[in-house]
Amino acid sequence: MRAAVMRGRKLIVAEVPVPQPGPGEVLVRTLACGICGSDLHALKHAEAFVANARRAGRAFVMDLGRDVVMGHEFCAEIVEHGPSTRRALAVGTRVCSRPTLTRESGPESIGYSNDNPGGYGEYMRLSEALLLEVPNGLATDQAALTEPMAVGVHAVQKARLAPDDAPLVIGCGPVGLAVIAALRLVNAEPIVAADFSPRRRQLAATLGAHVVVDPATTSPWTSWREAAGGRPAVVFECVGVPGILDQSMVAAPRAARIVVVGVCMEPDTIHPFLGIVKELSFQFVLGYTQDEFAATLGHIAEGRIPTAPLITGRVGLDGVAAAFEALASPESHAKILVRPGP
Amino acid sequence: MRAAVMRGRKLIVAEVPVPQPGPGEVLVRTLACGICGSDLHALKHAEAFVANARRAGRAFVMDLGRDVVMGHEFCAEIVEHGPSTRRALAVGTRVCSRPTLTRESGPESIGYSNDNPGGYGEYMRLSEALLLEVPNGLATDQAALTEPMAVGVHAVQKARLAPDDAPLVIGCGPVGLAVIAALRLVNAEPIVAADFSPRRRQLAATLGAHVVVDPATTSPWTSWREAAGGRPAVVFECVGVPGILDQSMVAAPRAARIVVVGVCMEPDTIHPFLGIVKELSFQFVLGYTQDEFAATLGHIAEGRIPTAPLITGRVGLDGVAAAFEALASPESHAKILVRPGP
Repeated sequence: MRAAVMRGRKLIVAEVPVPQPGPGEVLVRTLACGICGSDLHALKHAEAFVANARRAGRAFVMDLGRDVVMGHEFCAEIVEHGPSTRRALAVGTRVCSRPTLTRESGPESIGYSNDNPGGYGEYMRLSEALLLEVPNGLATDQAALTEPMAVGVHAVQKARLAPDDAPLVIGCGPVGLAVIAALRLVNAEPIVAADFSPRRRQLAATLGAHVVVDPATTSPWTSWREAAGGRPAVVFECVGVPGILDQSMVAAPRAARIVVVGVCMEPDTIHPFLGIVKELSFQFVLGYTQDEFAATLGHIAEGRIPTAPLITGRVGLDGVAAAFEALASPESHAKILVRPGP
Repeated sequence: MRAAVMRGRKLIVAEVPVPQPGPGEVLVRTLACGICGSDLHALKHAEAFVANARRAGRAFVMDLGRDVVMGHEFCAEIVEHGPSTRRALAVGTRVCSRPTLTRESGPESIGYSNDNPGGYGEYMRLSEALLLEVPNGLATDQAALTEPMAVGVHAVQKARLAPDDAPLVIGCGPVGLAVIAALRLVNAEPIVAADFSPRRRQLAATLGAHVVVDPATTSPWTSWREAAGGRPAVVFECVGVPGILDQSMVAAPRAARIVVVGVCMEPDTIHPFLGIVKELSFQFVLGYTQDEFAATLGHIAEGRIPTAPLITGRVGLDGVAAAFEALASPESHAKILVRPGP
């Protein structure tokens, strides 16, 4: 099959083997797959990505000497049922799935893996037990946004907001936008959101932020204080670069809760004394549960999470490398979808 | 009055003015005052201490060009009531108090202050509203341990332990020991505690740890896993040196909650990716509420928090500088009390 392959630290289009579905697995044709900021990180800082994964002692460990087909935000169509499948969903059904294989030997990543190609290839294998049928009438491209939007739903869930909590979203890339949509879903108000990019601020407002701030002209915390009026602070850190945690610790009010959703791959320096004196807390979050993932697809299908405005580009496999470059600039894009088909 | 004064980055015994009680304040004679690890930090890293305090935008900002009389873990005796006092407690009454003045202009620190001398001096002024009478029969020295033990009570309170949570206490200096005592108080079990010092491990067992570990021979996490058997991890970080947070992040199981009680005054480097992949949380804690402080004094008076074993030395003002030196070695001491009186 054709795929955009990470090979020798570069993205190239190449022929790779079609994955074979194992027991309980199905072969699917990728219809659309979003490009995630973590994929940009994984390509640019491949060694650090793998070293971090190894240090965390879990998934995402790849052999960089072998091919990797990334892509974990997808909508696909069932092509063939593997052995020991229940076949409740027919060939041709459009499905979404968490990018995970639930194997007897333990869970395996799809995408950040040498063996389980992700959505930047024409075909994938998925676990039948995780398949979610795309509700009739929901556009494929919007269904492909289930994964990134589920990240926001999960982050807000983990934040365990009290009715009085006033959120501040730092960074309005796809992660921050997903958090804003999820905050709107639980009727959090006011939602204050900050980003240097006018385009992203506009999207933040579209997705439900009540106050949007340009940190170049106004401190997000000043705007937050005006809007929140002394209520407890819950900060969603959606930038994921070194220094942002300590900046938040300096600026945050006493007892603020900082939910760390942005994925920082590099070492980061903080001043614990700031956390201590203010009794701050950090909650690091990742991913979503199967229930949250399924609920997110439902929210998108029912229009409770708007996704259409997030899709700012579509490319074929030949356009993936250029799309990675384009996404480095926050001004031009939010989410670019890859359509690997012919 | 005589006091052990921080002057020119050194501890010397000198004559300083007796503080004058303002409205709502009383003058007290210091009977006993514990030496806190933070005081050692404040002396050794004075500039960093003040820079941190300034960065945190709160109390503890001192002018190092002027005298400072530290000491915030005290038991004292009322000498004189200032103006606008209610005088519910008579002259001669033994009292404890949080090391804070509640002034109309805002709270002020006692000890980490140029203007409000702490318990390393013969006299202090205290806010009448915060005074707690030492229950009849409780030894002065034990009452002086209310402050450090309240730190443990508060940390355990902030941890919001669920019945199934299994705690691990990293570091058994006075902070770790206070946490162990507070965990025992809420019937947490098993309490696993780790320290390199045999003396401190012995004290940990005396204060209520069920399993004590020498990290030089066994990983605390291995012992914790054996004792906890798959229950959720709540880690109390009671060391407060750079590197310990990241070490905990590497070793902790998924979804572990890390309560940061040790006061690290220096910048510290963490790998956020570890926190993200494992969905860890940090809760930084400091101090205690007035209710927690009062409850702690009651627990000590009723024997529910054992304090006598913690007192490993007693010095006069002339011995304070040497006691600071001695406390740098964890083998010889837990808590040294200063008795400033003649």
